[in-house]
Amino acid sequence: MSVWVQFLCRTLESIHQQCCGGVAAHKVIKCKAAVAWEPNKPLVIEEIEVAPPEANEIRIKIVATALCHTDLYHLLESMQPQGFPTVLGHEGAGIVESVGPGVSEYQQGDKVIPLFISQCRQCHFCKSPRSNQSRHDAMAPPTSRFTCKGKELLQFVGTSTFSEYTVVNEMAVAKIDPMAPLDKVCLLGCGICTGYGAAVNTAKVEPGSTCAVFGLGAVGMAAVMGCKAAGAKRIIGIDINPEKFEKAKVFGATDFVNPKDHDKPISQVLIEMTKWGVDFSLECVGNVSVMRSALESCVQGYGVSVIVGWTDLRDIAIRPNQLISGRTWKGSTFGGFKGRDAVPQMVKVYMDKKLMLDEFITHHMTLDQINDAIELMKQMTLFLA
Amino acid sequence: MSVWVQFLCRTLESIHQQCCGGVAAHKVIKCKAAVAWEPNKPLVIEEIEVAPPEANEIRIKIVATALCHTDLYHLLESMQPQGFPTVLGHEGAGIVESVGPGVSEYQQGDKVIPLFISQCRQCHFCKSPRSNQSRHDAMAPPTSRFTCKGKELLQFVGTSTFSEYTVVNEMAVAKIDPMAPLDKVCLLGCGICTGYGAAVNTAKVEPGSTCAVFGLGAVGMAAVMGCKAAGAKRIIGIDINPEKFEKAKVFGATDFVNPKDHDKPISQVLIEMTKWGVDFSLECVGNVSVMRSALESCVQGYGVSVIVGWTDLRDIAIRPNQLISGRTWKGSTFGGFKGRDAVPQMVKVYMDKKLMLDEFITHHMTLDQINDAIELMKQMTLFLA
Repeated sequence: MSVWVQFLCRTLESIHQQCCGGVAAHKVIKCKAAVAWEPNKPLVIEEIEVAPPEANEIRIKIVATALCHTDLYHLLESMQPQGFPTVLGHEGAGIVESVGPGVSEYQQGDKVIPLFISQCRQCHFCKSPRSNQSRHDAMAPPTSRFTCKGKELLQFVGTSTFSEYTVVNEMAVAKIDPMAPLDKVCLLGCGICTGYGAAVNTAKVEPGSTCAVFGLGAVGMAAVMGCKAAGAKRIIGIDINPEKFEKAKVFGATDFVNPKDHDKPISQVLIEMTKWGVDFSLECVGNVSVMRSALESCVQGYGVSVIVGWTDLRDIAIRPNQLISGRTWKGSTFGGFKGRDAVPQMVKVYMDKKLMLDEFITHHMTLDQINDAIELMKQMTLFLA
Repeated sequence: MSVWVQFLCRTLESIHQQCCGGVAAHKVIKCKAAVAWEPNKPLVIEEIEVAPPEANEIRIKIVATALCHTDLYHLLESMQPQGFPTVLGHEGAGIVESVGPGVSEYQQGDKVIPLFISQCRQCHFCKSPRSNQSRHDAMAPPTSRFTCKGKELLQFVGTSTFSEYTVVNEMAVAKIDPMAPLDKVCLLGCGICTGYGAAVNTAKVEPGSTCAVFGLGAVGMAAVMGCKAAGAKRIIGIDINPEKFEKAKVFGATDFVNPKDHDKPISQVLIEMTKWGVDFSLECVGNVSVMRSALESCVQGYGVSVIVGWTDLRDIAIRPNQLISGRTWKGSTFGGFKGRDAVPQMVKVYMDKKLMLDEFITHHMTLDQINDAIELMKQMTLFLA
């Protein structure tokens, strides 16, 4: 089992610096970015060129960004050379620097969060209440406004926030409260919404229920917070690093299991703890063995297991009767949230002090320190077969 | 892919013969039964002894029973010697011959359908609207009232309907309309409820939706009927035997696909037919490869795939992103129906001519012909890797 950790890299030393001073809109901007030239190599801080936004695009001055394990997955695990060179980062927040033709909903100075899932509001999927999987993936490669040393850099999941400036299609931008602290709410660009929404929207955790959250990184902690918000009575946090347990209590976990303390399968441990198994389990690791354990830990008859952690290198597997006897296996991306509508609401919930964000932040670093940040995350992330 | 077929073996030549004539209640009854002495061998018609019902038990004169592929699965595929000798059969209907102490809801002469899933009405699961998986499995081995040649015969899934008489716990008996034709409604003891309920209760097929049913045996045909009853607009039947297609039209199928007509994966064919994939798919085969195809045929974002066919010898597998991108994989037993409550209602729906049953029956045979029936089903069932 691996655990996820998440922390903040401030891209600008002066976070509150006024946006756009000295930058001419509709011109190429030269700025600093962390470039991933090839898989499994340190990022390189380079001066890059960021072209002006084209039709329906928005150029954003990134003020704060967090590092998510999915950035490392692309850099270190998926190992697909065609995904490079690129600018990683997808958990950022910033200020609109300029907008391209046709953009009316956003203007210079707006505080925004770039989204790695678009919400076009036009397609069948955006119009359906059942899905956040818009069919418009507007800034997917080869679309990019980045160049460096004469080479085009690929956009990463539409966002590329490890740059002082990025260009994002308006379908993938959430406009948020002008009073929101960007160095906190940037976390709503991925991990917190992913875990929280998986509990609230995907699992649809019920009041009084018993939940198990596998993996207490940022996504898992957010899933714990979502279970609590949904009214779960008992929330069991599972991690091989018991140092996570105290922090998980802050978010609402009531019980803790370290698989290393047991000789038997973790599903057996959970079934014994709960009589029949948990009502809801959430896999927040990204490991196919843990995904299986999470399903097997659910109560026969109506248990629901949600895959939240990301991996797609190997199959998941289960014995058919686990499902035939009444369990449900599902998953979601970005917690099932439609970002343009939901992220501003989540920011509001945070501003109303009904959602924790500050508690997730473990480090503050500058963009120049990004390789140190990656090393820190690697050290805090344990991979088991 | 294999297909299921289902047909009727009347256990008594005179179906309308008055029950209990000449049989003394509370005595051991000697009668005919088809005994499965060991795996993968023909059944043997034997004279067996059926002991009187004990506390909370009911002795039933079986009037009609159908043969289901799950009987063959136990006999020919699962190959577990500890499951023998036994009396197979779980899709029967009959008349109460006598009741044991404590039984008040049923009396001699009642028409009943034995249930392979109990409904005790007392346990946590029976009280929950989310599950039909009662924790009381009352007639599970070693409990049995059968003996033959001095040996105890095991009860099969609590029912053992390939006998002129069987003893079943009252928790596993549905009392039905006295006017119901037992040679038809016996099909509600398994296959029809399983397929129909999987569409209506488990998938929760929505009006106007597009559905795919994999495997057009009796369970698949019933799933088609369930999709239609739920208001599906398009119902795609998939089978490698195109002779099934005409019959499937009777139950509501609108489109047909024979995988042998295509070089590409069936999921690709279905996605091309439907633009994005089907809203709901139902696997009615019992083959792990087909289970995977059925999930992959669903629309990304909100597609739901239900496993209806039974197998538990090998794992099912899927790439995680199939679920992470928003699909749901689930399953059910007996279509999610709580049998004591639901089967009498399903009988009523049939009596009101709102449910087809007669159309499922392909052969009428006597108990003595049961091995011929098994051979017929084997010939009509094709197994692929």
